[in-house]
Amino acid sequence: MPEFRQNMATREWVIVASERAERPDQFTRRRAERRVITQLSENCPFCPGNEHLTPPPTLVIRNGNQWSVRVVPNKYAALRADDSNEREKIGLFLKAGGYGIAEVIIETPRHDLSIATMPETQVRLVLQAYRERTRQVAKMQNVNFVTLFRNHGERAGTSLQHPHSQLIATPIIPPNVRDQIHQSMMSYDSYGTCVFCEMMAEELEQGERLIINSEKFVAFVPFASRSPFEIKILPKEHRAFFGDVTDEELDDLARVLKTVLLKVYKGLDDPDYNYIIHSAPVGDDDARYSHWYIMVVPRLTTPAGFEMGSGIYINVMAPERCARVLKNVEIDAYAEESV
Amino acid sequence: MPEFRQNMATREWVIVASERAERPDQFTRRRAERRVITQLSENCPFCPGNEHLTPPPTLVIRNGNQWSVRVVPNKYAALRADDSNEREKIGLFLKAGGYGIAEVIIETPRHDLSIATMPETQVRLVLQAYRERTRQVAKMQNVNFVTLFRNHGERAGTSLQHPHSQLIATPIIPPNVRDQIHQSMMSYDSYGTCVFCEMMAEELEQGERLIINSEKFVAFVPFASRSPFEIKILPKEHRAFFGDVTDEELDDLARVLKTVLLKVYKGLDDPDYNYIIHSAPVGDDDARYSHWYIMVVPRLTTPAGFEMGSGIYINVMAPERCARVLKNVEIDAYAEESV
Repeated sequence: MPEFRQNMATREWVIVASERAERPDQFTRRRAERRVITQLSENCPFCPGNEHLTPPPTLVIRNGNQWSVRVVPNKYAALRADDSNEREKIGLFLKAGGYGIAEVIIETPRHDLSIATMPETQVRLVLQAYRERTRQVAKMQNVNFVTLFRNHGERAGTSLQHPHSQLIATPIIPPNVRDQIHQSMMSYDSYGTCVFCEMMAEELEQGERLIINSEKFVAFVPFASRSPFEIKILPKEHRAFFGDVTDEELDDLARVLKTVLLKVYKGLDDPDYNYIIHSAPVGDDDARYSHWYIMVVPRLTTPAGFEMGSGIYINVMAPERCARVLKNVEIDAYAEESV
Repeated sequence: MPEFRQNMATREWVIVASERAERPDQFTRRRAERRVITQLSENCPFCPGNEHLTPPPTLVIRNGNQWSVRVVPNKYAALRADDSNEREKIGLFLKAGGYGIAEVIIETPRHDLSIATMPETQVRLVLQAYRERTRQVAKMQNVNFVTLFRNHGERAGTSLQHPHSQLIATPIIPPNVRDQIHQSMMSYDSYGTCVFCEMMAEELEQGERLIINSEKFVAFVPFASRSPFEIKILPKEHRAFFGDVTDEELDDLARVLKTVLLKVYKGLDDPDYNYIIHSAPVGDDDARYSHWYIMVVPRLTTPAGFEMGSGIYINVMAPERCARVLKNVEIDAYAEESV
């Protein structure tokens, strides 16, 4: 039978109507065929040898003479560091200059890898670049909110093959972010605890949606997932701001993130996906009610009119079942081979 | 230059970064090829002769011996009228029975038409069915929110070709709906006016995003559109609840809705789209701060990690330009031909 479930942090409801989906493999053919990918691609602006095609880097992590990770301003940015931050009224309507920071994190010189398939040590360097740029960008005047994300495949909004993530920093904190913070603040004021710490403890307790319980992180398919195979990765230590993540946490996170994505890659035949690092706004670093986390969203289904109108997502596969599928994906041999 | 724009009703920000999109026709190849469609399809559960394939109708609008519009319970519904409405705690998590009403409005016996291409008199009957079922469903116990929507094409979440819309009624009012109502309530409390009435007046005043200004409706590409060619259709008369729409309004709306969708059909080469009728929750029929409207969303671009993380949409074509394109689509001859 279908049921409504509520996300305890956002109070958002979803409908889990799992009779509609019969088998996990119904999702695995939903993406465009991947082109054959070579280690190096002549016309790729992110490949070694083409460094002149990108603006000068804001961060380079080196390995001897070669670079391992490069962070560059986004040449086709939706926001610009040299634009104004002025608000202006056009009649009753409010607009603001397109000020913002948009950077691309080029994750490896190798054109053919992804977080799932690159060595864990390389994932660690990518995460280090995330942290470093988050810290630097958060110090810039007028930056109030930093979003880190990865788009993988066309259904996830990218056609660029070379493995990369993005950072966009804005002077504006959007109302839906504020609304969610307000919810977790109210929860803190009622119970005196962080609602994300509570959620994590409850998922550990119930266990049936857990994928990984490592020393410092928990990865699970949330009770009220919007869509099949969503995965939340939460740090066990309460911390509002991703920029404050410790070295030891990054060591552990590199393994957890790679493992989770390798399970998705292998179990669902390399689906298109997004992941997003959700973190508190700049200046709320020490908030007791905010807790940073990573959300992985495979793009297997299409939100339609009902989702757009009501905000209630219909999830066609029970989170418990998705977790079971992912837990059962064997990756040890695969992981070796891919490194 | 890119700019931020705020939706004055929801306070949501979008980024208009229009340099990214060069020409409207870049969007027109984004959908799967439509199959050749015949007037009647043998295996279609919505075609005349196959009435036994659907559950018994909840509404039939007749034309002599034939039906013109049929409304039937959704056989593959995500919610069920015979399910429970009980809330239950699973540890800290809240769930509720899958009670709800899910119906399909079969818009015409003709398999090959769409709102854009069917006669205006037929669109009028579809709208009448929307109103009738909204009124009836709103009277049912435990129904608190009614969503009416249309999914057109695979990118909009449907693979069924026969022209149809859907109604889903839930006992639950989702938080994002409440948040938006809260915004318009605050606005009412500040200014003593409905923010949607104000928005409409401002769009009429500025004029550059208008598509249609009819006797009873205004259709425009909103100042802060999330994506290219979004269209809002607002009734001039303030009314919170769609079920209260008058006969005279439906006459006018049939022409406006058909015209708008025919412009989209012709100007953008029959793109996939959703439309949604946004209306106040049941019981808030007379709210002075709520105003029902139709939102048309062509599915031309893909929201990615940034949109998912921040809720800020990047719109690659300026609303003023989209409105100009649509205004210039000539449809008179086409409309004749299609009837």
